Amino acid sequence: MVIDLNADLGEGFGIWRLGDDMALLDIVTSANIACGFHAGDPLTIRRTCAAAVDRGVMIGAQVSYRDLAGFGRREMEVDPEELCAEVLYQLAAVDGIARAMGGRVSYVKPHGALYNRICRDPEQADAVVEAVADYDRDLPLLTLPGSAVHEIAAREGVATVTEAFADRAYTPAGTLLPRRSPGAVLHDPAAVAARAVRMATARTVTAVDGSEVPVDARSICVHGDTPDAVLLARAVRDALIAAGVTLKAFT
Amino acid sequence: MVIDLNADLGEGFGIWRLGDDMALLDIVTSANIACGFHAGDPLTIRRTCAAAVDRGVMIGAQVSYRDLAGFGRREMEVDPEELCAEVLYQLAAVDGIARAMGGRVSYVKPHGALYNRICRDPEQADAVVEAVADYDRDLPLLTLPGSAVHEIAAREGVATVTEAFADRAYTPAGTLLPRRSPGAVLHDPAAVAARAVRMATARTVTAVDGSEVPVDARSICVHGDTPDAVLLARAVRDALIAAGVTLKAFT
Amino acid sequence: MVIDLNADLGEGFGIWRLGDDMALLDIVTSANIACGFHAGDPLTIRRTCAAAVDRGVMIGAQVSYRDLAGFGRREMEVDPEELCAEVLYQLAAVDGIARAMGGRVSYVKPHGALYNRICRDPEQADAVVEAVADYDRDLPLLTLPGSAVHEIAAREGVATVTEAFADRAYTPAGTLLPRRSPGAVLHDPAAVAARAVRMATARTVTAVDGSEVPVDARSICVHGDTPDAVLLARAVRDALIAAGVTLKAFT
Amino acid sequence: MVIDLNADLGEGFGIWRLGDDMALLDIVTSANIACGFHAGDPLTIRRTCAAAVDRGVMIGAQVSYRDLAGFGRREMEVDPEELCAEVLYQLAAVDGIARAMGGRVSYVKPHGALYNRICRDPEQADAVVEAVADYDRDLPLLTLPGSAVHEIAAREGVATVTEAFADRAYTPAGTLLPRRSPGAVLHDPAAVAARAVRMATARTVTAVDGSEVPVDARSICVHGDTPDAVLLARAVRDALIAAGVTLKAFT
Repeated sequence: MVIDLNADLGEGFGIWRLGDDMALLDIVTSANIACGFHAGDPLTIRRTCAAAVDRGVMIGAQVSYRDLAGFGRREMEVDPEELCAEVLYQLAAVDGIARAMGGRVSYVKPHGALYNRICRDPEQADAVVEAVADYDRDLPLLTLPGSAVHEIAAREGVATVTEAFADRAYTPAGTLLPRRSPGAVLHDPAAVAARAVRMATARTVTAVDGSEVPVDARSICVHGDTPDAVLLARAVRDALIAAGVTLKAFT
Repeated sequence: MVIDLNADLGEGFGIWRLGDDMALLDIVTSANIACGFHAGDPLTIRRTCAAAVDRGVMIGAQVSYRDLAGFGRREMEVDPEELCAEVLYQLAAVDGIARAMGGRVSYVKPHGALYNRICRDPEQADAVVEAVADYDRDLPLLTLPGSAVHEIAAREGVATVTEAFADRAYTPAGTLLPRRSPGAVLHDPAAVAARAVRMATARTVTAVDGSEVPVDARSICVHGDTPDAVLLARAVRDALIAAGVTLKAFT
Repeated sequence: MVIDLNADLGEGFGIWRLGDDMALLDIVTSANIACGFHAGDPLTIRRTCAAAVDRGVMIGAQVSYRDLAGFGRREMEVDPEELCAEVLYQLAAVDGIARAMGGRVSYVKPHGALYNRICRDPEQADAVVEAVADYDRDLPLLTLPGSAVHEIAAREGVATVTEAFADRAYTPAGTLLPRRSPGAVLHDPAAVAARAVRMATARTVTAVDGSEVPVDARSICVHGDTPDAVLLARAVRDALIAAGVTLKAFT
Repeated sequence: MVIDLNADLGEGFGIWRLGDDMALLDIVTSANIACGFHAGDPLTIRRTCAAAVDRGVMIGAQVSYRDLAGFGRREMEVDPEELCAEVLYQLAAVDGIARAMGGRVSYVKPHGALYNRICRDPEQADAVVEAVADYDRDLPLLTLPGSAVHEIAAREGVATVTEAFADRAYTPAGTLLPRRSPGAVLHDPAAVAARAVRMATARTVTAVDGSEVPVDARSICVHGDTPDAVLLARAVRDALIAAGVTLKAFT
């Protein structure tokens, strides 16, 4: 039993910070590093990459819509050709910095509204997949199983890695309950940790109606931007290890 | 007799354009491509890189202060560590895009106020040199001879390539007359072309006091953002070829 | 017979220009001045306001999504409360500059994707109307007749002024043919001018199927960002005057 | 004995927060609200204005260089004409929002590098003063006594209000010890509070060499962006009240 733990990191900008990057880097096995479009100035990227390399944490490029004011959480009707170039730009920038720090980008995880959009919009999904293929066809995309981007990546020969969310409620269909629904986000560390263990060992999660639904996940995402993020992530990590699960980056 | 002709390209942003990139790409041998900080959105970078690759024009990263509103022409008191990360980010982004288009970044040319600043400020010069060395120590910096950045690059083992400006007035000391001085910029294509020829063949230029001063230049810069830029650049190219000078990128 | 002619102005940013603002200011009676979110740096706003005041041209605030890279042409899922604050910010900024130049903002015209969105989305329309009402309930909104924003403005006691587009094709239902459809934009100055005259005098326009549809417009919009914009606008103005129509701002 | 307490507020941007605005608004009598150029998105401005109006706290416009990435702390060689337009834009935007919330901007306090620059650079100082005069000649500028901007404001008929810094070390000449010098910023609440009391009652401060230097201050600035900012500000407020000083906005 092997699982990867990923979290969003480097999501400050200039003077502003978001979350405790250094504490999270001691917990996760993969770091989705913000690339400058929703967060992440170059110096923050550089420091986060250097710290990830120091700790042997795998680096991913967390590409986003160009939207600092909205933290990349607002869907945008971006022309696919432009979106493709924007993803390529971000990916190349962070990979270059990671390499200068002795590491490299090993995967791509779209952020926020773009992540959600390419789960259902083939046009924007195609733009993201094309950018990854243009840069390095061997980089996998970290995404939700069963999504549009998954299919397109498969068609284009770009690998995908699936993830699950230990602190998010699931529908009986195995999809995430929308964030605005009551109970969509779980906050109790023990409960979240227990779910992570079941995701990694039984490969199931209890849906909102009490049913058990299968979970296909090579990685579990823990969130980094809430006040108790570090506690939660630590609880997940400890519970997984206690359950005999090996924490290991997916490549 | 061999010389390189370089120009700033890809300096639009979003809907806005500046200069006739495609016409200039048929004239120059090196393209200083804006990296997104003073100009240059990712799609413009991608298209300009693709067009440069098509024409066999060498690509350089035209790195800048982060200043879209001021087109990178305003000096900024940026912390050297931050400046270094910003240059690394821009360089990596454009190199990644260039590689996806079948080319690569072959040199770095700082833009505008940063170009001028690092001619005399060792601290910011060091930050730029360090960024280039961190990314790829074999990339040369295209700069003015005798400047602070020149010395620091030499010390750090980063190569430099010198350039001259055919349409700028020179002082008897061999430095550029400041842009705001009367007569600092020459507009007559025939005169500019004749100066370029002397720069390439006699390796001198006539200073504002009529004296001949030596010019050490492996490349001549032609400007792309004036209304008559293409005419001027074409005149320079034609005159150089007529004088038996070979136009050739410097690497 | 009285009509207003409006155009988008001040749509440069920093070094970049778009259209010939000064020529258009000699033609139109109302200037929709970009407020800094899709275009329009403060100095451009100030100069455009000063030039409009000089010529007695009425000033409107052309408010937009925050999207310089996309020129405000991409729909964004902005939270209504945030959109309301953004519109208020832009409106206040341009009104303050206009007043410092001896004028004032006399109306509000949403730009690009926001303009289209609030024709059909009551939530975002409500946000825009609320911003106008918060700032100055007496400022009218310049919009398409029959749109969602029209209804909401009426309900909230904010006045609206209707406009028509002389260079755009209309459907038999009286709506604009989407911009991407073939023939959606007319380019022949004589044809466009003739349509403007019929809009102002007969209050009809010939739809794409040849039928005559009624047009309810107190203002006609001419575009400023195409190469032939000034020619077209001049043709419209001359034809209207020749037809005995009085060109006059709507307040 | 009457003194004003001012602090920088609304200095978040988008998802990012800086300091505890609501706690500080219960302590200070004047709020320097960020205008969007170094911090402060429109919704943050609106909420901060509304909260200030609720508590009867006077609102000031904290105008800045356009530099989100550097939080306005980096000097920029901005053309005076452009700087003037930028200050006018920011001032008008925040005043309009404040008015929509039932308040108004009552003074202008430049931020960060701009604040420091106009203490010694007459050209940029003149640009700021001109912007204030253009918008509303009756708005005072909150500045350091004896600075370039002070003189220019006096000459142009713009009022100034002087401030002192209770948590900053002073030189024997009565100027601030540069922030990078050791001991430049005091952190002990009791010591800072005692200094504030002496500033308000004895109108002196103990300089770094132990000498007492006169302090001319109608307002005392407390910082809001350090972890202990609220504790420090609360200590200053309590000590001033205990010493019989009346806390009151300066207009």
